[in-house]
Amino acid sequence: MKKEIKFSLVYRDMWQSSGKYQPRADQLAKIAPLIVEMGCFARVETNGGAFEQVNLLYGENPNKAVRTFTKPLREAGIQTHMLDRGLNALRMYPVPADVRRLMYKVKHAQGVDITRIFCGLNEVRNIIPSIKYAKEAGMIPQATLCITYSPVHTVDYYSYIADQLIEAGAPEICLKDMAGIGRPEMLGQLVRNIKDKHPEVIVQYHGHSGPGLSMASILEVCENGADIIDVAMEPLSWGKVHPDVISVQAMLKNAGFQVPEINMKAYMKARSMTQEFIDDFLGYFIDSTNKHMSSLLLGCGLPGGMMGSMMADLKGVHSGINLLLKGQGKEPMSLDDLVVMLFEEVEYVWPKLGYPPLVTPFSQYVKNVALMNVMQLVKGEERWTMIDNHTWDMILGKSGKLPGALALEIIELAKSKGYEFTDEDPQMNYPDELDKYRKEMDDNGWEYGEDEEELFELAMHDRQYRDYKSGVAKKRFMDDLQRAQDAAMVKSGFDEETIRKYKRTKADPIIAPDKGQILWEVSVEGPSIAPFVGRKYQHDEVFCYISTPWGEYEKIFANFTGRIVEVCAQQGAVVNKGDVIAYLERTEFTA
Amino acid sequence: MKKEIKFSLVYRDMWQSSGKYQPRADQLAKIAPLIVEMGCFARVETNGGAFEQVNLLYGENPNKAVRTFTKPLREAGIQTHMLDRGLNALRMYPVPADVRRLMYKVKHAQGVDITRIFCGLNEVRNIIPSIKYAKEAGMIPQATLCITYSPVHTVDYYSYIADQLIEAGAPEICLKDMAGIGRPEMLGQLVRNIKDKHPEVIVQYHGHSGPGLSMASILEVCENGADIIDVAMEPLSWGKVHPDVISVQAMLKNAGFQVPEINMKAYMKARSMTQEFIDDFLGYFIDSTNKHMSSLLLGCGLPGGMMGSMMADLKGVHSGINLLLKGQGKEPMSLDDLVVMLFEEVEYVWPKLGYPPLVTPFSQYVKNVALMNVMQLVKGEERWTMIDNHTWDMILGKSGKLPGALALEIIELAKSKGYEFTDEDPQMNYPDELDKYRKEMDDNGWEYGEDEEELFELAMHDRQYRDYKSGVAKKRFMDDLQRAQDAAMVKSGFDEETIRKYKRTKADPIIAPDKGQILWEVSVEGPSIAPFVGRKYQHDEVFCYISTPWGEYEKIFANFTGRIVEVCAQQGAVVNKGDVIAYLERTEFTA
Repeated sequence: MKKEIKFSLVYRDMWQSSGKYQPRADQLAKIAPLIVEMGCFARVETNGGAFEQVNLLYGENPNKAVRTFTKPLREAGIQTHMLDRGLNALRMYPVPADVRRLMYKVKHAQGVDITRIFCGLNEVRNIIPSIKYAKEAGMIPQATLCITYSPVHTVDYYSYIADQLIEAGAPEICLKDMAGIGRPEMLGQLVRNIKDKHPEVIVQYHGHSGPGLSMASILEVCENGADIIDVAMEPLSWGKVHPDVISVQAMLKNAGFQVPEINMKAYMKARSMTQEFIDDFLGYFIDSTNKHMSSLLLGCGLPGGMMGSMMADLKGVHSGINLLLKGQGKEPMSLDDLVVMLFEEVEYVWPKLGYPPLVTPFSQYVKNVALMNVMQLVKGEERWTMIDNHTWDMILGKSGKLPGALALEIIELAKSKGYEFTDEDPQMNYPDELDKYRKEMDDNGWEYGEDEEELFELAMHDRQYRDYKSGVAKKRFMDDLQRAQDAAMVKSGFDEETIRKYKRTKADPIIAPDKGQILWEVSVEGPSIAPFVGRKYQHDEVFCYISTPWGEYEKIFANFTGRIVEVCAQQGAVVNKGDVIAYLERTEFTA
Repeated sequence: MKKEIKFSLVYRDMWQSSGKYQPRADQLAKIAPLIVEMGCFARVETNGGAFEQVNLLYGENPNKAVRTFTKPLREAGIQTHMLDRGLNALRMYPVPADVRRLMYKVKHAQGVDITRIFCGLNEVRNIIPSIKYAKEAGMIPQATLCITYSPVHTVDYYSYIADQLIEAGAPEICLKDMAGIGRPEMLGQLVRNIKDKHPEVIVQYHGHSGPGLSMASILEVCENGADIIDVAMEPLSWGKVHPDVISVQAMLKNAGFQVPEINMKAYMKARSMTQEFIDDFLGYFIDSTNKHMSSLLLGCGLPGGMMGSMMADLKGVHSGINLLLKGQGKEPMSLDDLVVMLFEEVEYVWPKLGYPPLVTPFSQYVKNVALMNVMQLVKGEERWTMIDNHTWDMILGKSGKLPGALALEIIELAKSKGYEFTDEDPQMNYPDELDKYRKEMDDNGWEYGEDEEELFELAMHDRQYRDYKSGVAKKRFMDDLQRAQDAAMVKSGFDEETIRKYKRTKADPIIAPDKGQILWEVSVEGPSIAPFVGRKYQHDEVFCYISTPWGEYEKIFANFTGRIVEVCAQQGAVVNKGDVIAYLERTEFTA
């Protein structure tokens, strides 16, 4: 009998690779007992990466979501783990040291046991401070090797980085094969090297299934000493996401490893419940091609976790590109042609940018450069003319040392712009900021929250947090959702007019009792705007005001409890007596 | 450096796992040079299995299709291979010995080098005669082990079968992992056993990617001595089909094997061209979920090659089942629920039926029993009450020996029906038939064809061949295609009336010049029927007749060259002067 292999359910990552959003706190609370009941998970990935930002984006408090999800899992003896980006912590650009330190304190208090710390460049200077901060806060720091495949990313290269991270105090190493392009043989050798030298270090393997190598990689890393494997489950497993726990378990069991059994009844229940979450709202933001694998991903090396947002980007520019092509008398491109063209451009630009591993944020930088190059080439213009500042920072060394050499043309371009290269510790460019955010909270009269978690959220995602607090985030999300639902109805064969009519049939109009100007939410600070679609009103709540020609503010009451399905009169609009101000769908029937 | 590994493109199988049809001969002729140009294939699977039958189904001559496809490949030095089902040859039920023998003669003459001979039960008595017939005809017999996973299907079990097949003269062994459920470790051990004992025997591995083990299996069989790996290519690779050559090549190259390079320019051209075939007509019969992998396939073990037709079956019974449930006041089931219920029933019935490997035709038998059981259970009735005769033949031993023991309840059911078990050589039940078919051809005045290939087609697929000859097959296919195209238009948001109008706008009506009864195709034998949608008429061709009240047969001419898009008056319908008989779309514009 071979060694014991444990499984970790990558719940957050599974959603991130599939689409734009992740389940709400109430949904996490519902699924957690089923995850426990499955009986096969030693660990569950509960948060981190884009998780908190996504919570804010749909107007939910991330701190409550994390606490809600970790509690039942920890009570059942399952370890919880998060993902963090080292210097960039939970966002796409560098974070001051005091905010990084606070993060581990907050996340530990919220019930997260382990943090998987990575730097997209595998720059140890960006990871090592986090190892220390996490330990200070009582968390287990799992240091990470971002796996990619290039002439500079050899087994020796990775083994040397692992040595440095372990020496700095990491008790665990993660092989983060975020694009699934690590070759099985190479990964096996790397695990063997780490385990031979550091037998006490736990090795966890995380791989995406997009280009199809992941199952062979799992078998190879286990044969060479890995301890824990990240797995997914239906309906989100496979495609560009992760291998399913059922297949991983069956393969390893037959190969002689000690693996836990899966409670299939619980699996099937969790599968159905996850499908309900998808049907509820998450599915509107999931691209169906994320269920498809493609070997073309091997060439470009883009990560599975980025596919959801990338497809959304491409859909955005698709019609613009075809308009340009039409203007030049050329044939339009299909979305698939565009994807392939982008993949080829990524293959072209990647070596010239010094082979940064294609993981957040560098995968986005490289993808953006490639996308801009494609746009420029379509226009008949030059490459490299549209590089944003974050990408320049990476090129100039502000994010850390690039693994490979920059192409001469890039170095010359930098010089021509008067930019300077640096090899300073990246953190040095980002001074502490917590005091600034404390002041902002004090000025607004906002609470720092339990364990200072609200202060942390503001400091980590300031813009998103402000939008969350003001309600703008929620409004934007509800509008987005309504648009997506409408688009789905159009796709299933209804025109917009029919949908509007259909929605109205389920709703009652709020009628203007007099001529006048509509005023929504008379607010003392900031602009007053129309309510978002989906906003709920109680029957006795003031719906809006009409500023009458005779100078009065007439209160309009909702009169019944319901949610807005359509706003007909925007802020300041003039209505006549009898006009419809908005349609409200009844949600409660009062006698 | 490890050994050389060669690749075989499973072109036929790739399509069969995806949908109902396969490319036409003209399409095969177009893709062949690109397959050659890719430069990485030592072999291509050109025909066999369901291939010829599918040709007949859409009204094409399979012999011409095979010759068209094999010629350019063989000229480029690529070996061609087919698939045959041993005793069942190219169909779903047993074939007389004289027809089996003729098949190898015909296929060799048509340019097929290798035949992959399998029996769903791994019954050597069904395979060994074919090894001899193939050799007599000059073909290379590749004897096959149908891989499944059960307590009786051990490495020793398979090794012993391989020994017998090799002893009978097979120079090659195929591991046909048709459901992709063979466990990598077990497959590696099996290849090692075969190669240790028979180092001169070529071992080819064929695996489906549905449940996700295939890439690990490929690595394991190569590490243990396999020589050739079956691969697919985009846009049909992955999902429930096969791994893509790009990923297989990259994985094996990194592991130190000698593998050919892929001409990616040719790959991308072939990828686009295959997409054109899909857009042309094949895609209307491809279920989109065949692009999805599912670990639930591990439990039921159903083969990837069956998914296309199974999904079609399930869609067919889905509404009927929901009608039954509604009648019982129960909730309707989603198609996904039904798939899962069927998978679970297959898991239940399979051991009780003696673990026949789930491959054609036994996968269909087991699936059908499970489906009937599901239907009966939904109705509140008993299992096992709807078993067809072919399945009874399998149970009673007429197809060969079952690998496992039958459940007592099945044995008792057979006895209660007065059925008898047998262990006779299955071929004994099927006496020679070629003379009978020669007579049928003579009576009809049909040619035996080059190398007697037409005689062979009739003898192998008599019903389908007759429908092909009469034109009924083509008519049925064109109707099917029209329905599928209409359904796709409905799905994309058009109602049936709009579609009919749209089609009419592209067509011209043929108007009845007088009152009378419509007669299509005045035929001396058999019923006269309305022409199929899609049938072409020349401008000077008689379109139909009107039998006038004054007893004349008035000839109606097409007047222009075009194809029928809608028939408004069926055979015998009474029309008034000015009525539309049919709509014809112009295909040629004559001055």
